[in-house]
Amino acid sequence: MSNLRALFRATVETTETKSGRAFDTVIQSLIILSLTSYALETLPNLNNDQIFTLKIIELTCIAIFTVEYVLRIWVAEKPTKYIFSFYGLIDLAAIAPFYISTGLDLRSLRAVRLLRILRVLKLVRFNEAIRRIDVAFDLAKAELALFVAASMVVIYLAGVGIYHFENEAQPDLFSSIPDSLWWAIVTLTTVGYGDMYPITAGGRFFTTIILFVGLGLVAVPAGIVSSALSEARKINAEQKNQN
Amino acid sequence: MSNLRALFRATVETTETKSGRAFDTVIQSLIILSLTSYALETLPNLNNDQIFTLKIIELTCIAIFTVEYVLRIWVAEKPTKYIFSFYGLIDLAAIAPFYISTGLDLRSLRAVRLLRILRVLKLVRFNEAIRRIDVAFDLAKAELALFVAASMVVIYLAGVGIYHFENEAQPDLFSSIPDSLWWAIVTLTTVGYGDMYPITAGGRFFTTIILFVGLGLVAVPAGIVSSALSEARKINAEQKNQN
Amino acid sequence: MSNLRALFRATVETTETKSGRAFDTVIQSLIILSLTSYALETLPNLNNDQIFTLKIIELTCIAIFTVEYVLRIWVAEKPTKYIFSFYGLIDLAAIAPFYISTGLDLRSLRAVRLLRILRVLKLVRFNEAIRRIDVAFDLAKAELALFVAASMVVIYLAGVGIYHFENEAQPDLFSSIPDSLWWAIVTLTTVGYGDMYPITAGGRFFTTIILFVGLGLVAVPAGIVSSALSEARKINAEQKNQN
Amino acid sequence: MSNLRALFRATVETTETKSGRAFDTVIQSLIILSLTSYALETLPNLNNDQIFTLKIIELTCIAIFTVEYVLRIWVAEKPTKYIFSFYGLIDLAAIAPFYISTGLDLRSLRAVRLLRILRVLKLVRFNEAIRRIDVAFDLAKAELALFVAASMVVIYLAGVGIYHFENEAQPDLFSSIPDSLWWAIVTLTTVGYGDMYPITAGGRFFTTIILFVGLGLVAVPAGIVSSALSEARKINAEQKNQN
Repeated sequence: MSNLRALFRATVETTETKSGRAFDTVIQSLIILSLTSYALETLPNLNNDQIFTLKIIELTCIAIFTVEYVLRIWVAEKPTKYIFSFYGLIDLAAIAPFYISTGLDLRSLRAVRLLRILRVLKLVRFNEAIRRIDVAFDLAKAELALFVAASMVVIYLAGVGIYHFENEAQPDLFSSIPDSLWWAIVTLTTVGYGDMYPITAGGRFFTTIILFVGLGLVAVPAGIVSSALSEARKINAEQKNQN
Repeated sequence: MSNLRALFRATVETTETKSGRAFDTVIQSLIILSLTSYALETLPNLNNDQIFTLKIIELTCIAIFTVEYVLRIWVAEKPTKYIFSFYGLIDLAAIAPFYISTGLDLRSLRAVRLLRILRVLKLVRFNEAIRRIDVAFDLAKAELALFVAASMVVIYLAGVGIYHFENEAQPDLFSSIPDSLWWAIVTLTTVGYGDMYPITAGGRFFTTIILFVGLGLVAVPAGIVSSALSEARKINAEQKNQN
Repeated sequence: MSNLRALFRATVETTETKSGRAFDTVIQSLIILSLTSYALETLPNLNNDQIFTLKIIELTCIAIFTVEYVLRIWVAEKPTKYIFSFYGLIDLAAIAPFYISTGLDLRSLRAVRLLRILRVLKLVRFNEAIRRIDVAFDLAKAELALFVAASMVVIYLAGVGIYHFENEAQPDLFSSIPDSLWWAIVTLTTVGYGDMYPITAGGRFFTTIILFVGLGLVAVPAGIVSSALSEARKINAEQKNQN
Repeated sequence: MSNLRALFRATVETTETKSGRAFDTVIQSLIILSLTSYALETLPNLNNDQIFTLKIIELTCIAIFTVEYVLRIWVAEKPTKYIFSFYGLIDLAAIAPFYISTGLDLRSLRAVRLLRILRVLKLVRFNEAIRRIDVAFDLAKAELALFVAASMVVIYLAGVGIYHFENEAQPDLFSSIPDSLWWAIVTLTTVGYGDMYPITAGGRFFTTIILFVGLGLVAVPAGIVSSALSEARKINAEQKNQN
């Protein structure tokens, strides 16, 4: 292994060295910059200067991400392993649409661009705390699965029920069970847009019961995750004490 | 006990055998399929082909669920015990409406169909994690009951209070205490549709106080359930360690 | 102490005897009945029969609550202590408006009736689990106070901030800081009626930041209460083990 | 050190003495009074008397806060250290705008006044429970950071996704990704104003998935904070037991 390659590896692959942390900070900032510029590009009424600036940012990001991708392949112990790893594919997906779309009709660009949102997933790489979260999810797996399943059952029953109560009074809004399921989801997550709500006495009474039962199911998973996380923290601390 | 019956029992009643798991997966998928097709049937503007497909799915599900029901009776050690058990009755309720409604006037079908939503409850059968949740509910029973009761008292007081504050300013919306109770439920569960909201200074001040007091009551039950679940997990783990 | 008085005391004051539990169940049912009838009385378009039925229910409840109140005074070891105790005053407040209002102009009845909602507070008496909740509140007192205070500060800052961002664009809705505070309360409790919401880019950006900071404050108290309750449960269990 | 200065220090700087607690209560009440009067000043249609009263309150508060500021400098062991401390600067910022703005054009007053909201931050000073909260945040730092980051990623993806689903059907509401991000924030915090909501089948299905995944991320931080607080309480109690 050449010295230069070892040097680059210390920068690109690890976060323990000073240069590695600097590299990560730059890449993360560029990811956020490119996400922001992607969002701004969709604004109507942009003038030519603004469009030009966003294009420049986009091209710069693509260029740097390409260099980064090539570097990662070069420094990897087993390049093919990296290329076909989860993060390798995401790194590629973040830059490939640019190169592929240039050869194609420009109008199809817009659809292909949708893939660019995958670039966000790169943010995930930079975090080690995920391991502890894995332990927590493992601890609470069964309860989580059950509560999510029970929530779905309650949402289904809520949708079917409200359809029978409100369909006659509001045939345009509660026109079918799929539409009523949308109401059930918006209500039981307590989002409550106000686009659909019961107006009959029966429908309101039914909603009250569904809310009392349903919130005790739908709101629990978040609580399970957070208390499992505090357990995972303790297990972690105990393991450290034993060593 | 015949060998064939023993073989079927291993498939139908248990989830430890490979065939048992396959059987369960098929039945669960069919339940979800039949629920989906039931929801889609209510869509307006379906063409004849779509209606026909949904009918076929419905008939297939009914056929398989009937075979399943007969099998369960046949393999049960005490058939009568199964038939009159909770799940036995639900299994029957999931298929009976089809057979009963065919002999009746077709227009009454729609009302009888409402019973079909009971089919959902079958999903509950397939889960063992319920036992741990039972322990958790047992642990937190008293607090849960008290907080649910206190929530109801706060909702009642909120409804009566807002009626006196808003009835004069918005006589159409806050026309009576039952209508105002609907507002109280929608507000204190934080759903907030926006169909009713206070506009007077007094009503808004009252709502602020009710929200500060009320959310400290209404939001607690979900938290109690999730922390009781993490205790139940520990109790479970300790019991396993002792064995 | 006469035997009869001892007998009635066993029924009225305790919940350990069979007759005591029956008495409590009857009184609780009557409280709920009278609350329901009070709510229904406010419905517009009631016919004479319905009004008559509600009147009868009301009079019956008043009669029984009066008998109960007299009984409680009679069986109490120190009648004056009961009369001026918290629950004694609530018991009186639940029936007094009826007797006082009959001597007055009937039109004033409506305002005096507002006091009748105090009858709800009687429901509180029947629960012993309150003691454990007291321990929990004592455990988490300081954090609760701080988070509630911090929530109020954030709500105030949110209201002032959004006023400066939105006042110009929506002078009718965000017309003053008190109005903007109403928005802040509705938003940070996640009720979100939709009567007021930011439309300027600055106001929306400000709301985003306020929500990220604010929900981490406003949503915490409910979590604190529920985890303190699970600690109170453990402390309770340990104390029982030691005895 | 003069006796008088020592006496004032005992009042101004500590909360252990009786006079110190009285001083703090007065200052805190005045802060709340001045915040309330600042909010009321923005009400339209105030008459001259009301404006005059609010002006008097404002001037009184400014006077007392100025005396307090001077006192704090006088009694401080190292005056310069106090002046440039965080609270020293906030204390100054709470009164300075009044003195600075008088010499300037009165119309600019309104903008400068925005700084007056900093006065709120003074409320923070008076609380010691913050230390325990510091421990809790330290315990849960990593998980909190990760969940907040993951929430942001989900919000970004939700905004981009809904833009592609709804832009064609509702070009006025979902006109760009920044507008769609506003929808994502309002939805995933469950505020749900109802100013923007999906109407296409695809957009609703996407929202359902985003809500199921997203609420499991966005709602967790509040739960993490509250369970970390209960751990911090235990650590605190153990440390007290050891001493």
